[in-house]
Amino acid sequence: MTKTLSDTTEAIVFDPLLQNGWAMSKGDNAIAKTYRFKDFPAAFSWMTAVAIWAEKWNHHPEWRNVYARVEATLTTHDTGGLTPLDAKLARKMDELYTGFTQ
Amino acid sequence: MTKTLSDTTEAIVFDPLLQNGWAMSKGDNAIAKTYRFKDFPAAFSWMTAVAIWAEKWNHHPEWRNVYARVEATLTTHDTGGLTPLDAKLARKMDELYTGFTQ
Amino acid sequence: MTKTLSDTTEAIVFDPLLQNGWAMSKGDNAIAKTYRFKDFPAAFSWMTAVAIWAEKWNHHPEWRNVYARVEATLTTHDTGGLTPLDAKLARKMDELYTGFTQ
Amino acid sequence: MTKTLSDTTEAIVFDPLLQNGWAMSKGDNAIAKTYRFKDFPAAFSWMTAVAIWAEKWNHHPEWRNVYARVEATLTTHDTGGLTPLDAKLARKMDELYTGFTQ
Repeated sequence: MTKTLSDTTEAIVFDPLLQNGWAMSKGDNAIAKTYRFKDFPAAFSWMTAVAIWAEKWNHHPEWRNVYARVEATLTTHDTGGLTPLDAKLARKMDELYTGFTQ
Repeated sequence: MTKTLSDTTEAIVFDPLLQNGWAMSKGDNAIAKTYRFKDFPAAFSWMTAVAIWAEKWNHHPEWRNVYARVEATLTTHDTGGLTPLDAKLARKMDELYTGFTQ
Repeated sequence: MTKTLSDTTEAIVFDPLLQNGWAMSKGDNAIAKTYRFKDFPAAFSWMTAVAIWAEKWNHHPEWRNVYARVEATLTTHDTGGLTPLDAKLARKMDELYTGFTQ
Repeated sequence: MTKTLSDTTEAIVFDPLLQNGWAMSKGDNAIAKTYRFKDFPAAFSWMTAVAIWAEKWNHHPEWRNVYARVEATLTTHDTGGLTPLDAKLARKMDELYTGFTQ
């Protein structure tokens, strides 16, 4: 996907994510977000839920974990850019995160 | 621990759990609770958080999982009955569960 | 699936599993096996791998874990009996287990 | 720990790790290694085992996962350098990895 965010369809799909803590990265070919948790068990159990969905959808995050922090980057390696699958996984990650933010 | 729930100390420790879905089992030598989740990834990621705490405290649940349901039983094998460690793990399991019940 | 193990196809699919520690259960409507590990982290990390494949294939085990032991039962709830999906998951569970048995 | 690898004690503890795929990083204040797995479920289940031990020992890796690859960095944040705890976790990570390399 070489289209930029100015493209209407892209904007509709990704704008809500950009309003929710995600940012464009890698020259607009990826989105990234940092999640913070109460402690390491919380961070890792969230990662486990994400891992299960990622494998089910065959779309995996690039992510870095240091204690209670997880930095996630999503891109579609096959196309070298963003696709609806990135948005789908991002929304699932956000949804799963809500349980940890009370 | 051969004392029963009529014992004052026992009651103080375990009564709040019995008010929160736990029930005595195995002739008052264990407590048990069934947790229900939205789906399997939710159930298993909760189990992951519990697993990490359980190993850290060296006190593990007996548990059975079928899809989105987890039946947990806590007892202290060393003493053949309930100890404060069971209450501690039960409270942690309940605390971790709150994120999944919204 | 109401066919029994005397059925030729069934035998071809399930016989290798019965030779590898699995046993018929629930009136030949399920297969069951007990896995033993070195410690709890080993048992639970194996469960994590199984969990990911189970969700990916939308076919989940009934399993009970006590410390380093996991008792697994496989059946296909939709049909009330055994199907090739049970054999597929059983083979994957055995394959994943080999890494823990050295 | 401001001592370098030329220090005798350091060498005894870390040399076996450096012979086993680990390399010094961050100006000799950390060690790093890249693990490769067959697929994502293998990588993540290994991470789960490591996560459980890490929390138990209250010493956590910095790690980055992309599909079947995990890049791990170990350092002791409290001291700003390497300590025996880093070596202990590194050895456990290697031990847990052996099950995945057959």
